[in-house]
Amino acid sequence: MARFLKKRLEKKGTAPGSLVFVGTKKVEKTQLEFVAYNTADIIENSKVQRNDLAKIQKPGFNGWLNVIGVHDAQLVEQIGNQFALHLLLQEDVLNTGQRPKFEEFSDHLFMVIKMLHFDKETELIESEQISLIIVKNLLISFQEIPRDVFNPIRERLLRPNTKIRQRTSDYLAFAMLDAISDRYMEIIETFGERIERIEEELLEQPRRELLEKINLYKKEINFLRKTIRPVRELVSRFKRSDSELINDSTIPYLNDLEDHITHATEAIEIYKEMLNDQINMYNSALNNKLNDIIRVLTIFSVIFIPLTFLAGIYGTNFEYLPELHFPYAYPIFWGVLIIVALAMVYFFKKRRWM
Amino acid sequence: MARFLKKRLEKKGTAPGSLVFVGTKKVEKTQLEFVAYNTADIIENSKVQRNDLAKIQKPGFNGWLNVIGVHDAQLVEQIGNQFALHLLLQEDVLNTGQRPKFEEFSDHLFMVIKMLHFDKETELIESEQISLIIVKNLLISFQEIPRDVFNPIRERLLRPNTKIRQRTSDYLAFAMLDAISDRYMEIIETFGERIERIEEELLEQPRRELLEKINLYKKEINFLRKTIRPVRELVSRFKRSDSELINDSTIPYLNDLEDHITHATEAIEIYKEMLNDQINMYNSALNNKLNDIIRVLTIFSVIFIPLTFLAGIYGTNFEYLPELHFPYAYPIFWGVLIIVALAMVYFFKKRRWM
Amino acid sequence: MARFLKKRLEKKGTAPGSLVFVGTKKVEKTQLEFVAYNTADIIENSKVQRNDLAKIQKPGFNGWLNVIGVHDAQLVEQIGNQFALHLLLQEDVLNTGQRPKFEEFSDHLFMVIKMLHFDKETELIESEQISLIIVKNLLISFQEIPRDVFNPIRERLLRPNTKIRQRTSDYLAFAMLDAISDRYMEIIETFGERIERIEEELLEQPRRELLEKINLYKKEINFLRKTIRPVRELVSRFKRSDSELINDSTIPYLNDLEDHITHATEAIEIYKEMLNDQINMYNSALNNKLNDIIRVLTIFSVIFIPLTFLAGIYGTNFEYLPELHFPYAYPIFWGVLIIVALAMVYFFKKRRWM
Amino acid sequence: MARFLKKRLEKKGTAPGSLVFVGTKKVEKTQLEFVAYNTADIIENSKVQRNDLAKIQKPGFNGWLNVIGVHDAQLVEQIGNQFALHLLLQEDVLNTGQRPKFEEFSDHLFMVIKMLHFDKETELIESEQISLIIVKNLLISFQEIPRDVFNPIRERLLRPNTKIRQRTSDYLAFAMLDAISDRYMEIIETFGERIERIEEELLEQPRRELLEKINLYKKEINFLRKTIRPVRELVSRFKRSDSELINDSTIPYLNDLEDHITHATEAIEIYKEMLNDQINMYNSALNNKLNDIIRVLTIFSVIFIPLTFLAGIYGTNFEYLPELHFPYAYPIFWGVLIIVALAMVYFFKKRRWM
Amino acid sequence: MARFLKKRLEKKGTAPGSLVFVGTKKVEKTQLEFVAYNTADIIENSKVQRNDLAKIQKPGFNGWLNVIGVHDAQLVEQIGNQFALHLLLQEDVLNTGQRPKFEEFSDHLFMVIKMLHFDKETELIESEQISLIIVKNLLISFQEIPRDVFNPIRERLLRPNTKIRQRTSDYLAFAMLDAISDRYMEIIETFGERIERIEEELLEQPRRELLEKINLYKKEINFLRKTIRPVRELVSRFKRSDSELINDSTIPYLNDLEDHITHATEAIEIYKEMLNDQINMYNSALNNKLNDIIRVLTIFSVIFIPLTFLAGIYGTNFEYLPELHFPYAYPIFWGVLIIVALAMVYFFKKRRWM
Repeated sequence: MARFLKKRLEKKGTAPGSLVFVGTKKVEKTQLEFVAYNTADIIENSKVQRNDLAKIQKPGFNGWLNVIGVHDAQLVEQIGNQFALHLLLQEDVLNTGQRPKFEEFSDHLFMVIKMLHFDKETELIESEQISLIIVKNLLISFQEIPRDVFNPIRERLLRPNTKIRQRTSDYLAFAMLDAISDRYMEIIETFGERIERIEEELLEQPRRELLEKINLYKKEINFLRKTIRPVRELVSRFKRSDSELINDSTIPYLNDLEDHITHATEAIEIYKEMLNDQINMYNSALNNKLNDIIRVLTIFSVIFIPLTFLAGIYGTNFEYLPELHFPYAYPIFWGVLIIVALAMVYFFKKRRWM
Repeated sequence: MARFLKKRLEKKGTAPGSLVFVGTKKVEKTQLEFVAYNTADIIENSKVQRNDLAKIQKPGFNGWLNVIGVHDAQLVEQIGNQFALHLLLQEDVLNTGQRPKFEEFSDHLFMVIKMLHFDKETELIESEQISLIIVKNLLISFQEIPRDVFNPIRERLLRPNTKIRQRTSDYLAFAMLDAISDRYMEIIETFGERIERIEEELLEQPRRELLEKINLYKKEINFLRKTIRPVRELVSRFKRSDSELINDSTIPYLNDLEDHITHATEAIEIYKEMLNDQINMYNSALNNKLNDIIRVLTIFSVIFIPLTFLAGIYGTNFEYLPELHFPYAYPIFWGVLIIVALAMVYFFKKRRWM
Repeated sequence: MARFLKKRLEKKGTAPGSLVFVGTKKVEKTQLEFVAYNTADIIENSKVQRNDLAKIQKPGFNGWLNVIGVHDAQLVEQIGNQFALHLLLQEDVLNTGQRPKFEEFSDHLFMVIKMLHFDKETELIESEQISLIIVKNLLISFQEIPRDVFNPIRERLLRPNTKIRQRTSDYLAFAMLDAISDRYMEIIETFGERIERIEEELLEQPRRELLEKINLYKKEINFLRKTIRPVRELVSRFKRSDSELINDSTIPYLNDLEDHITHATEAIEIYKEMLNDQINMYNSALNNKLNDIIRVLTIFSVIFIPLTFLAGIYGTNFEYLPELHFPYAYPIFWGVLIIVALAMVYFFKKRRWM
Repeated sequence: MARFLKKRLEKKGTAPGSLVFVGTKKVEKTQLEFVAYNTADIIENSKVQRNDLAKIQKPGFNGWLNVIGVHDAQLVEQIGNQFALHLLLQEDVLNTGQRPKFEEFSDHLFMVIKMLHFDKETELIESEQISLIIVKNLLISFQEIPRDVFNPIRERLLRPNTKIRQRTSDYLAFAMLDAISDRYMEIIETFGERIERIEEELLEQPRRELLEKINLYKKEINFLRKTIRPVRELVSRFKRSDSELINDSTIPYLNDLEDHITHATEAIEIYKEMLNDQINMYNSALNNKLNDIIRVLTIFSVIFIPLTFLAGIYGTNFEYLPELHFPYAYPIFWGVLIIVALAMVYFFKKRRWM
Repeated sequence: MARFLKKRLEKKGTAPGSLVFVGTKKVEKTQLEFVAYNTADIIENSKVQRNDLAKIQKPGFNGWLNVIGVHDAQLVEQIGNQFALHLLLQEDVLNTGQRPKFEEFSDHLFMVIKMLHFDKETELIESEQISLIIVKNLLISFQEIPRDVFNPIRERLLRPNTKIRQRTSDYLAFAMLDAISDRYMEIIETFGERIERIEEELLEQPRRELLEKINLYKKEINFLRKTIRPVRELVSRFKRSDSELINDSTIPYLNDLEDHITHATEAIEIYKEMLNDQINMYNSALNNKLNDIIRVLTIFSVIFIPLTFLAGIYGTNFEYLPELHFPYAYPIFWGVLIIVALAMVYFFKKRRWM
C-alpha cells in the first residue's frame, strides 16, 4: 500500500463534489451523538435518530453533533443539507485520504485533521480522519471509529463552570484540536525515547536489526511529519480567519496551540536528523569492525608468512644444504623464527595496530 | 535524448511567436470535436470541418472545442484568428516542450499542462501536452493523441443535471485539470507501491539490479516532480486571477484541486527521499556482506596459518631434530594443533566474530 | 527521556488553561523577592509574604518581583489574579516545557526563555525556564532554581545613576534577556573550543571514543539550536510590539540583542557543520588506516607467496628431480628467491605502495 | 584561474566608476555597426566611424548600434557621453567579469548577460559578455567577439513585415535575450545527453575516467548555473520595470522568456542532481567490485588452506606416523581432501557466495 | 580559540552600553588623523590631538576622522560625546567581535565591517574590525591596525576633480566599503586558485595531506562566508535607508557594490561545494586504490595457492605414492602447475581484473 498518498483513486473519473465514500469502512453502523450545553445546563443524547436532525438544535444552547463512522454517504448528505454545508465539504468528509486543512465557507468553517494511534507492538502509527465543522452555535464532528479522542472533552463539558461550557463552538473546536495535538506529542515522545534507546544499542554492537529498525522509524517519522506539519497551517488559518464564528477570546488559545504544533514539528525534524545520524553511526561502526577483523588477519598472516617460508626452505631436499648439518642448527633455526616474529610484533606495536 | 529540457531547439533562430510545430508528430491527421451544452440540451459533433469553425458557437450554449493532434500549424493559426488568441499562445500550443503554466491574456485564459501515461512494462512515464484556452462561453482544448483523458468528462456532460452542465467553461477547465491530477495520483501511487516493494527485497538480498531499478525510479520521480510541481503554481494563479471568465463558485473547487496537487508533490518528495534512503540501505547491506565474507576469510586463515607453520617445522630436514624421534611425538603434535585451533576459536567467539 | 519535546503529557486531558505544574520540582519552597527602585532610591525585600502581594507596589517606584520556584500553582494563580494576568500565561509559567516565545496581552507582555547551565564534567547542558512579565511599572520574573542568573542585574540596580535605575520594566526585561544571551555565548564558545580540539585529535588518531564524543556534541548542539533559535523571534517580536509598555529608547538595545542572538545561531550552524565534517574526517581516517593495513598484508603476502611456492617445489619427493643434485643448487636457489623478492619490491615501489 | 569569481582585481584600488578595461582582449580592433529600421525601410552601415556617432540616429527610424570589442575605454566613454549613459554603466561594459543584471537609470535601461559557447572537444564552456542598453529609439549592444549571436536577429530585421521591424528597441533587446537563452538551452541539452550517456557507461564498468568526467561536468554545470540563474532575475526586473521605454505589448514575450529561463534552471538543477547520483553509483559499483574480488579471494583461500595444511601434516618427518604406512593411504588422503573441498563449496553455495 | 563566535565574554555581567574594550590590543598607542576636503581644497592633519577634537570640523569642508587603535575606551567616549553618538554605537566600536551590520540612529549612520588579511604562509585569514560613522559633513572611521586599507582612498582624495572630492561622507563611506569588498574578492580568488590546484593533485595521488588541506580550506571558506554574507544586508540597508545623510546619486554605486558582494557570496558557495566534492573525490580515490591493492593480493594468492597445495601433495611422505616414481613425473608436474596458473590468469583476464 502506498502510504504517503491520499487514496482518491477508487473514485477515479467521478465528478469532483460527488458523494462517494473513499477509504476503509472501520465501523459497522454510523452512530450520532448530540450534546446541548450552556453555562447553566447540559443535555446529552447518545442515540440521535437521523430523522430528528432537523429539530436537534435548542435555542439558548450550544450544540455538538458527533458522527461516528463516515462511510454513509447518504447520512453525510442529509447532514449537509440540514446545515447548508458546501458540497465539496461533504465530499471531503467522505474521503478519508484528506490532507489536513482549514477551509472557510460563507457561513461555516471546516477543518480536517488526523487523529493518530500508536500500536506499541508493531510500532506502526494508525491514522483516523477527524472532520470538524463550525456552524453558528453548533459544532459537527466526524470520526471514523468510536475511540476515546473526545472523552476528556465530554468530561469537561459535564462539569459546570468550565471554560468550555461558557464558550461557543469555536472554543470547542479548539479544545478538540488541542486534544489531538496532545496525542501527537505523546507519540513523538514515545518515538523519541525509542530512537534514543537505539543509539545506546548502536554504540554497543552494530546489529543488522538495528538498521532495519532505524529504517522503519524513519518511515514512521516521515508519516508523522506529513500528518502534523499541515496542522500548523490549519491552526494559523483558523486563527487569522475573520469569520464571525470565531471569538476574539479564542485567539490566545489558538496562538498557544500553534506554538505546540511548532514545537512538535521541530522535535520531529530533530528526530529525523538523529535517525540519519544513526545510519552514519551504524556504517562507521561497521567500518570499525571491518578494520578490526582485517587487522587481526593481517597480524597473523604477516607474522607467520615469513616463518612458514623459512620452514619451507629447510624442508627442501637439496643434496647440498649445509645448514641442515650444522650442530645446533635446529635451536638456531627456532631462534631466528622467534626473532623474526618479534620484529613483526614490534612493527605492529609501533604502528599501534596491536 | 535529454529528457529534462524543453525541446525548443529545432526552431532555433526563428523569431519568438513564429508558428512552427516543435515535437514529435503523434497522430496522422488532426481531428476536431465540438460539444455545445447548456443545462437543458447537449449537441455533439465529432467531425468538425475546419471551414465550419467560424459558425461553430451557438447562442445560449457553452461550447467545448477539442483538437486532437497539434502538429498542424495552419489549423492552430486558423483557430487563433477565429477566436482572437494571442500569437504567443498559438506558438506555445504548437511547441510540445512547454513547462506547465497559466497565462492570462486580455479576454482569454491559457493553460498548458502535461497528461502522463505510465507504461507498466518499461516502467517509463510518457508525457502528452494538453493546452486549455478559456474564452467567453467556450473552452478550447488541444491534445497530442486521441487518448482517454477526457472521456469521463464527456460522459458527465452527457448526463443532465450534472454540475458540469450548469456551469461555464472555467468549471469545465477545472474538471479537466482535476481529471489530469487524478492520473498523477494514480501514477505516484503505482510508483509508491513499487518503491516500497524494493525496500522489502533490499532487506533480503542487495542485488545489483535493485540498485539499477532504484536509479531508474529516481529519474522517473524527478520527471514527475518536474511535471507536477509547476501545476501547483498554475492552479494558484488560475484561482487568484481576477478575470471575468472565472466564476466565484469555481474557487472552492480550485482550492480543493490545489490541495490535491500539494498532496501529490509532498508524496513525491517523500518517495524521492525513500529512494535516497534505499541507496544508503543498499550500500550498508553491501558493507555488511563484505564484513561477513572477510570474517570467514579471517577465521579460516587465522586458524590454519599457525597449524600449517607447525607442520612446516616438522617437515624440515634438520639432521638433529629431537622431537621427531620422541615416542608419541605424532599424537602430541596433533594435540598441540588442536589446542592452538581451539584457542583461536575461543578468541573469535569472545570477539563475537563467530 | 525524550529530550527534544516539551513534556506536556503529564497533564494530558486536562483543559487548556488549567493551572497544573508540569515539570520537575527543583526547589523545596517557593521564595519571593521584591525590589522597588527609581532614579533616586532603592528598596529591597528578599522575604516577601504572599499576603503582602496586594500592597507591594510603591507609587513613584518601578518594581521587580522575582519568584523562585514555579511548582506552586496556587501562588502563580494568586499573582495572576493580583496583576490581572491572562490564564494561559499562568498556565505557561507553570509548564516548564515551553518553547521560548513572546506573547502580547492587552495590558501586559509575556516572555518565556531558557536559562542554560553547562556541566563541565558530564558535558551536558541543563536548562531552566525563565518567565518574564512586563506590567505597568513592574516586572515579574519566575525562575526554577535560585541560581546566579540575575545577580549582575541586582548589582547594577544597587548602583545609583546606572541606566537600569533610570528606566522602566521593559529595559529591565531587556537586561535579563541580555544576561541570558551572554550565558548562551559562553556555552557556545565552550563547545566551540572542545569541537576544535576534537579536530586536532582526529588528525592524530581516529579513536572510537572521538566518534562517540562527536555524536554527543551533535546532540548538545542540536539542543542549543532548538533553545536559542526561537529567541531571535522572541526578541524580534518584543522589538516590533507597539505596546505602550515599551519605550522607544529601548529599541536600539533590542536591536543589539537581536544581533547577538543572530551571531550565536550562526555560530551554532557552523559548529554543527564542523561536527558533520568531523564525522566524514573520521571515516576518511578509518579508510586510510584500512588501506595501510591491507597494503602491509598485500606486500608481505605477495612477496612471500611465490617464495614459499618455490620452497615447496624443492620439498617434493619426486624420484627424478635434477635441480636437487646440481652443484651450487642451494645457493642458486637462494639467488632466485632474492631476485623474485626484489622484483616484487620493485613492483610495489613503482606503484608507490611501499 | 579562479573561474567562479569576477576578475575585478586588476583594477584594485582604482575608484569605482573609473573607465579601465578588465578582462582579456579578444579582438584586435573594435568595430561599429549601425542598423536603422522602421516598418517600411532598413538602412545598414557595417563600418561606422567614431566621429559619425553624433549624427548616427535618423528621425522616424529605430536604431541598433552594435559594438564588437569592449577593450577600448575611450570609445566606450565617447559612446557614453554621446548618449548620456551613466558612468557606472560605462564601467560595467568595460569590465567583462560582471554578474548578469538589469539596471534602470533615469532615461536608459542597462542589461549585462553572458553569451555561452560550448567547445565540443575540450567540453569546456566559454563565456562572452554582452551588454545591452535601451535608449529612446535606440539599442546599443556590446559584444566581445564578432560571433554569430546576433545573426538570426539581423536576418529577421532584413525581412519586411516581421514583428521586430514594427517594434522598438525594447522588443529588439528581448529578441537578443531570447536568442541567447536559446543558446543556453542548446548547451544544457548537449550536457544532458552526455550526462545520460555516462550513466549507461557507469552501469557497464566503473572506470576511473568516468569519475573524472563527472567531476568535470559538475564544474561546468555549476558554471552554467551561476551564469543562467541571475538571468531569471534580470528578465523579471526588465518585465516589472515601469520605464516608458518598455511597451506593454512586450510584456507577454518577457513572460514567455522568463518561463524558458525557469525551465532551463530547473533542468540544470536536475542534471546537477543526476551527477551527484552518478558519483554515488560509481562508489556503489566500486564497492560491488571489491566485494566480488574479495569473494573470489576468500573462496580460494578457504578451500585450499585446510588442504594445504593436511598436505603439510603428511609432509612431516615424524619417525612414528602410522598413516603413512597404511595401505591405500594416498588414495584415502585424496578422498579426504576432496570431501573437505566439497564441504567448503557447499558452505559457500549455501551463503550464495558462489 | 573558538573562532566563529564573537568574544563578548570578557565583559560578562557588565551592563549593555558600558564602555569596555573587548578584543586584543593590536597597536600600542591610538592615533588620530583628520582630512578636511572640498572640491577645491584639501587639508591633512595626521597627528590630531585629543583636545583639538572639538574644533576639528571646518565650515565648507567635508571631514574624515580616522582613528587607528580601538582599545582606548576613554577616547571613544570622548569622540562619542563630541559628535553625540549613541552609547551602544560607542560600545560596538570598542567590541572587536561584532557581526557586520548597519545601524541607523536619529542623526548618524553606523556600520561595522571586517577587513580581511590573508597570510600566504599559514594560509590563515586574519580579520580586523572597521567601524564607519556617517555624521553630517563628517565620516569617522575606526581601524584596529595602521594597515593599508584606506591608502587608495587617501590618494584619490589628494587628486583634485575626483568624484570623491565632490561628494559627501556617504560616498566616502561607500568608497571604503568598496575598497574592503575588493579585498574580499582578492582573497576569494586566491582561495579559488588553491582549491582548483588541489583538485589536480587529487586526481594524481590521494595524499593524506590533501585531505587536511581541504579541511583547513573548508574552515577558512566558512569564515569568509560568515564575514561576507552579512555585508550584503549591510549594503542593502545602507541603500534603502531614507536618512538625509545619503544622497540619491550614491544609490547606483551602492547597487553596484551589492552586486559585487552577491557575486562574492555566490563564489564562496561554489568553492564550498567544490571542497565538499573534493572530499568525495578523495574517498573515491582511496577506494579505488584499495580496490587496486586487493586485486593484486587476490591475483597473487589465487594463482599460487593451488600451486603451493600441489607442491605440498608431492612433499608428503606416503609410502605408496605412485606419481613420485613415474618417469617424467617432475616435468609433467611443472606442466600441470603452468596450466593451472594459466587457467587462473585467463579467469582474471575475463573478469577484467588483470
